[in-house]
Amino acid sequence: MRTHDWIGLLAGTLTTIAFIPQVIKIWRSKKADDISISMFLIFTAGVALWMVFGIQTGSLPVTLANAVTMVLALVILILKYHYRK
Amino acid sequence: MRTHDWIGLLAGTLTTIAFIPQVIKIWRSKKADDISISMFLIFTAGVALWMVFGIQTGSLPVTLANAVTMVLALVILILKYHYRK
Repeated sequence: MRTHDWIGLLAGTLTTIAFIPQVIKIWRSKKADDISISMFLIFTAGVALWMVFGIQTGSLPVTLANAVTMVLALVILILKYHYRK
Repeated sequence: MRTHDWIGLLAGTLTTIAFIPQVIKIWRSKKADDISISMFLIFTAGVALWMVFGIQTGSLPVTLANAVTMVLALVILILKYHYRK
């Protein structure tokens, strides 16, 4: 792999795992009031399309990274709904 | 442009503009307690690397979309710090 491949791999790993601390925070505090539901709805639609893009261009890393990110964003949406006031 | 280019463009637009409603929500409520600072620190590092990836591979859309996302994620971090308790 060339340098930019490694940078892309690291970038994709970071933008994917970033959502894990947010899931843990909501899970522990049982609060998600300050989370924007619009943000996560639009973001989930976006990563779903990135996944389609990954499938169409035959890119396994793009497909996989966005599949994981989509699951994490969906978990945040479900928790947001679950802990609504 | 081919179909997957349009899908990529729409995907990038969605995952970028998604952060705007979160910025507006924090700005209006003056609260960001439920936002995970770790999420936005890791995410900002990730999109910064995606920007480097875009520059290195000569992709203007990847560079631009991630530059805008990085600014929005940084604004959320600054607001989170500003409205901390």
